[in-house]
Amino acid sequence: MAEPRDTVVLAYSGGLDTSCILVWLKEQGYTVIAFLVYIQDVCREFVEEFIWPAVQANALYEDRYLLGTALARPCIARRLVLVAKEQGARYIAHGATGKGNDQVRFELSCYALCPSIKVIAPWRMPEFYQRFPGRRELMEYAQKHGIPVPVTPKAPWSMDENLMHISYEAGILENPKNRAPLDLYTKTCDPTTSPDIPDELEIEFEKGVPVKVTNTKNGVTHRSALELFMYLNDIAGKHGVGRIDIVENRFVGMKSRGIYETPAGTILYHAHLDIEAFTMDREVRKIKQGLSLKFSELVYNGFWYSPECEFLQHCIARSQEAVAGTVRVSVFKGQVYVLGRESPHSLYNEELVSMDVQGDYEPADATGFININALRLKEYHRLQSKVSTKQDE
Amino acid sequence: MAEPRDTVVLAYSGGLDTSCILVWLKEQGYTVIAFLVYIQDVCREFVEEFIWPAVQANALYEDRYLLGTALARPCIARRLVLVAKEQGARYIAHGATGKGNDQVRFELSCYALCPSIKVIAPWRMPEFYQRFPGRRELMEYAQKHGIPVPVTPKAPWSMDENLMHISYEAGILENPKNRAPLDLYTKTCDPTTSPDIPDELEIEFEKGVPVKVTNTKNGVTHRSALELFMYLNDIAGKHGVGRIDIVENRFVGMKSRGIYETPAGTILYHAHLDIEAFTMDREVRKIKQGLSLKFSELVYNGFWYSPECEFLQHCIARSQEAVAGTVRVSVFKGQVYVLGRESPHSLYNEELVSMDVQGDYEPADATGFININALRLKEYHRLQSKVSTKQDE
Amino acid sequence: MAEPRDTVVLAYSGGLDTSCILVWLKEQGYTVIAFLVYIQDVCREFVEEFIWPAVQANALYEDRYLLGTALARPCIARRLVLVAKEQGARYIAHGATGKGNDQVRFELSCYALCPSIKVIAPWRMPEFYQRFPGRRELMEYAQKHGIPVPVTPKAPWSMDENLMHISYEAGILENPKNRAPLDLYTKTCDPTTSPDIPDELEIEFEKGVPVKVTNTKNGVTHRSALELFMYLNDIAGKHGVGRIDIVENRFVGMKSRGIYETPAGTILYHAHLDIEAFTMDREVRKIKQGLSLKFSELVYNGFWYSPECEFLQHCIARSQEAVAGTVRVSVFKGQVYVLGRESPHSLYNEELVSMDVQGDYEPADATGFININALRLKEYHRLQSKVSTKQDE
Amino acid sequence: MAEPRDTVVLAYSGGLDTSCILVWLKEQGYTVIAFLVYIQDVCREFVEEFIWPAVQANALYEDRYLLGTALARPCIARRLVLVAKEQGARYIAHGATGKGNDQVRFELSCYALCPSIKVIAPWRMPEFYQRFPGRRELMEYAQKHGIPVPVTPKAPWSMDENLMHISYEAGILENPKNRAPLDLYTKTCDPTTSPDIPDELEIEFEKGVPVKVTNTKNGVTHRSALELFMYLNDIAGKHGVGRIDIVENRFVGMKSRGIYETPAGTILYHAHLDIEAFTMDREVRKIKQGLSLKFSELVYNGFWYSPECEFLQHCIARSQEAVAGTVRVSVFKGQVYVLGRESPHSLYNEELVSMDVQGDYEPADATGFININALRLKEYHRLQSKVSTKQDE
Repeated sequence: MAEPRDTVVLAYSGGLDTSCILVWLKEQGYTVIAFLVYIQDVCREFVEEFIWPAVQANALYEDRYLLGTALARPCIARRLVLVAKEQGARYIAHGATGKGNDQVRFELSCYALCPSIKVIAPWRMPEFYQRFPGRRELMEYAQKHGIPVPVTPKAPWSMDENLMHISYEAGILENPKNRAPLDLYTKTCDPTTSPDIPDELEIEFEKGVPVKVTNTKNGVTHRSALELFMYLNDIAGKHGVGRIDIVENRFVGMKSRGIYETPAGTILYHAHLDIEAFTMDREVRKIKQGLSLKFSELVYNGFWYSPECEFLQHCIARSQEAVAGTVRVSVFKGQVYVLGRESPHSLYNEELVSMDVQGDYEPADATGFININALRLKEYHRLQSKVSTKQDE
Repeated sequence: MAEPRDTVVLAYSGGLDTSCILVWLKEQGYTVIAFLVYIQDVCREFVEEFIWPAVQANALYEDRYLLGTALARPCIARRLVLVAKEQGARYIAHGATGKGNDQVRFELSCYALCPSIKVIAPWRMPEFYQRFPGRRELMEYAQKHGIPVPVTPKAPWSMDENLMHISYEAGILENPKNRAPLDLYTKTCDPTTSPDIPDELEIEFEKGVPVKVTNTKNGVTHRSALELFMYLNDIAGKHGVGRIDIVENRFVGMKSRGIYETPAGTILYHAHLDIEAFTMDREVRKIKQGLSLKFSELVYNGFWYSPECEFLQHCIARSQEAVAGTVRVSVFKGQVYVLGRESPHSLYNEELVSMDVQGDYEPADATGFININALRLKEYHRLQSKVSTKQDE
Repeated sequence: MAEPRDTVVLAYSGGLDTSCILVWLKEQGYTVIAFLVYIQDVCREFVEEFIWPAVQANALYEDRYLLGTALARPCIARRLVLVAKEQGARYIAHGATGKGNDQVRFELSCYALCPSIKVIAPWRMPEFYQRFPGRRELMEYAQKHGIPVPVTPKAPWSMDENLMHISYEAGILENPKNRAPLDLYTKTCDPTTSPDIPDELEIEFEKGVPVKVTNTKNGVTHRSALELFMYLNDIAGKHGVGRIDIVENRFVGMKSRGIYETPAGTILYHAHLDIEAFTMDREVRKIKQGLSLKFSELVYNGFWYSPECEFLQHCIARSQEAVAGTVRVSVFKGQVYVLGRESPHSLYNEELVSMDVQGDYEPADATGFININALRLKEYHRLQSKVSTKQDE
Repeated sequence: MAEPRDTVVLAYSGGLDTSCILVWLKEQGYTVIAFLVYIQDVCREFVEEFIWPAVQANALYEDRYLLGTALARPCIARRLVLVAKEQGARYIAHGATGKGNDQVRFELSCYALCPSIKVIAPWRMPEFYQRFPGRRELMEYAQKHGIPVPVTPKAPWSMDENLMHISYEAGILENPKNRAPLDLYTKTCDPTTSPDIPDELEIEFEKGVPVKVTNTKNGVTHRSALELFMYLNDIAGKHGVGRIDIVENRFVGMKSRGIYETPAGTILYHAHLDIEAFTMDREVRKIKQGLSLKFSELVYNGFWYSPECEFLQHCIARSQEAVAGTVRVSVFKGQVYVLGRESPHSLYNEELVSMDVQGDYEPADATGFININALRLKEYHRLQSKVSTKQDE
């Protein structure tokens, strides 16, 4: 039983689980502040402070996942901590399960931002999860306590959505062989029925983040971060862009299967990759790529608020200073095609690379370059021959 | 002037350039053996010994390029060296330009395999490139020497094709803003006119390489490396899969723009990524990912035959020993969609990950896991607070 | 209270802690098998199966720690599991503290080798650590139960020793500013009083491990792994080699201060580094160096028996196939000096590198090599100038 | 023959080679400006702008070489370019050989700083090196042209010295088995005859660079960069600290043997490593370590003035912001011993790590931490057992 005056801020989604948790926490004697996270101003900071750094990084977990859920967690946690501090609450509660990544992401963020906070995770507490072993018990509890119960039948999988993406997992999806039902998707159209005419966009970047999106078909233009991101969500969604079906490795050590839709994020991933390759030095890019791999892993694992993630974010931002220009893309039937790019800061030198003019390039230099690079290989061959000759004797 | 008896093996493509080089070399006094590279048996070894290791590695240069040209070069070079040794030739010649990657790839491979060989690269020799400053001079030379001259007008770009891919670059493509003409593509259909019904394939892997492909719509099955690869080329080509338009960084230090089609390679990239994630331990995967990045760079730069590439290929192959199972994919309108997967060796544990059963998992453990991971973050916060408090004073 | 028939294998050191744990476990109803770990045959496998792979890797945690304790833990754990299986014991117990690395190393090894085993860690159990809050309570308990009590006063720090090294920490050493007392060291002489005449050794390697050590002063020679390792311990100890005083980062997230002596390991580190540099290709070495960094971290953290460590050990061993030859070192006053080396497999080519003869090297090639490498730098300069010119306008 | 008005700035050392080059260049018609590099103010910028970043990075090439020569080259090149610009010279000349690293370092730096400059490297020009095949021809040329000829017999090896280090190579050292003669060393005393009493120093760091050195024996203190570096050179030299004998891999692809003395640099390497480990977060350190490896390689290869090196230097400097505190070291008989350290910014928490008090640490959390980390290992074991059971059938 909590002290009568103990206050807890609950990350409240409005769903059955967190509604029951809300009542249960009150039963335990807590004063509960239910914080509903997706209000407009969180969206803006979500885009600018969390999605944009991921775009700069080309952040991708295990080569495929654009980190839609992982990026949202520290954003929510920061708000929870803020509310807790404002309200003098010593506790934060969430409805994440005990097997997943989200518990880790929420809690590491909370502890990093406010080490004295205590987190209540009912799905890890025997007194809670033994009382509510299944959905039926939650429903009964909800009805008994006047909690509005969902009338539509629950989908045979679980969903988690935010501005950037939606995830589907569990239930019938737990068998990794099972194909996702056609009616599962909610953020993107089915590519087999999506429009037969592509949309074309010009995406302008400054310092590695998009600052302007223009639909060249109709001239529609957006410049603010949130608006352009939402517009990209619309266009990508309309053309079925951003669906993946993957098995991934959770931080807690198990493999899980997830189906994700990340419409705007997918367009931006391709466009940013292109403008970056166009404007960034080859060797800087290689180093930055290594940093981004680490960054992606850290974000996935919940370490957004950590000294190492802070450090990486700084370094990656530094690498983006000259990543500026415009990429033209076509969006069509689940695909994003890069059509061309231009930049005021490009290291691309049309004359240097041209097959028709020599430019400031001396072909004979390539001979020396190759010969010196071959030196080591010849030495290795010399040694191998010696070894194999010996073995033949 | 070469010694009368000096023999040179020329990598002969049948095109205008290498035809002229052939005659020019003879003019210089060489005995020329023209080796036409793409005969059937080279294709088989190209798939099994060059493409398969790249599939195992998920080899990708700068996040996008599947290395179609880069993989072919050492395969050709090996043949050239073989012929040179058989024929007692001391020279190898090629028609690669002096600004590109291919000269490096050919020559490093040749030198690594046979350090005593001499390479003749006419496009780096002033006596050649000054004599033939443009296409017109080559045409005149060809006509004068009875070399069959192409009757169709040359495309305003250059092309290079092999079993795995085709590249388009130079000419009007040198301006990176210019969109590729619709009629440029030769290996894949235009996604806007490709079939409206997907094909579905089951791709079976063993040790990280495909061993069987089945079209589940019509039961067509292929098991041999070359045949299944060619079948995947057909299916992917039919659905417009494998087109990219990129700016990349050449080894010689300049940025270039290339448009590529890699039909089968694109399907295999996605399928292998999936079966690997499904069967490989998380941490092994992370290490292997780093090795693959390096491998891709080395292959791109021409170091296929190098001690480091040999080492990496060995390590990557080791990581693939349990990468086995079947991935089901849909191929449609330029996209490859993974639909599901199964494996006899998967580390995926449906019971462990299930939201419905606890399995061999103690939720309370996650609390300790999170708390210990938070320790370092709390310490960092403690120090930061101390620092900022001090600064506030 | 344990089931009467429940058997536990205790990692028993003979010290006060594990002696008390032994009795306490019996009090709890367990049948206890005390396994004293450092018997002769474990030493041999410790050297050959644990220290040798670390030598091959040049394993070093955080640039300084040769991993003496970390390497011993999986070796002991394997034995514990073996005994547990032989004896049908379901439990393993150890006396490692709840803040340290050793608990993790023991338990991860046990779980990896035998997932069904249960580990009892009394220092993490409130019923134990609250009963024995300090040394006094342990002493009283020991006397009460007839456990032989150490008669010599305890050193004001804790020690942990094995064949490879000894660590000192805690107590007065917890203040990282405090200098280690002169009489703390037990495995190495004080360099200020060690012999004034160096010993010189020839250490012969095959496949990256030492196979023969000869003292060139007196001809003493050892060839077997255990014997030559013990001899190196003697020589290094006599000359004060192998002392470090460091602050390191524990896996559980805190920094700790440790003082270590690793006599033989220090000589082998320097000698192996030298023979490896002499015989291994530059680029292979660079890749292997990255793998070794990861290997060292994994060993430190307790992941010896993990898929990733197994994978790395395999790759590193592969890199050592041609690491063979003899290094001559001088050991004197705390230092190891490499004096020279020779090898049948060296990539070192005296003629190639000579300043006096040209060998198979064309100086003009270096011009092309430099110019091509400069291309990218010049392009970058061109762009920077354009940017700064613009800013100046 | 150069145009009469063509001016060349020569990196002049005062030795036989560059003296002859000077005259030879004049013979070729150039106006020669001989720039003698080691004047006082270059030393100051060498320490502050080149050595300090290397100290911050713990820069070490191939685990052993502190980069003494490599760091000096870009510093000299910058001056040469400055002089060339001031004097309107279009050429820069140097006396580096055609097989070494220095030619690359000089020229890449020059081209990066001033792409239009032309470099003259006589030792790569047949008209020069064929005229002067050996030392005898140089001597004759010198005498003929009134160039002062060294009267002392030349050491049978070559030397290159700067404020940070001296290198010995070539001649009798080219055989890597040959031990360095006792009288070779010039910057450090022989440890067998160096003082029998250690010196003890307190080295204070701010932002990862030393800002104060105090000899605790006599109170001598230095605060300015150049003065404290020179003082460390004295102390280290007196005690024989900083000698290594290595085989390294040159950028041009060959292995070479070098003997180096880096007195002050060796002390600073150990001291900085210690204060960094004490004050930097574990994970930031790991990332920074990877960056430093790359940085060291780039510096060695001559890419100081490159976009990637600039980027790395920025990132590494960022990591050093809280690297502050004092390290106490003992310097004795060729060794540097760290005795203790303290810092106002340390992440070291004596209470947290203490074995005697629990602090803000819950031992039970470690159980969960270990169990979750073991999950993946158990799954792997489960799969391996399945595989091996199958193989046994």
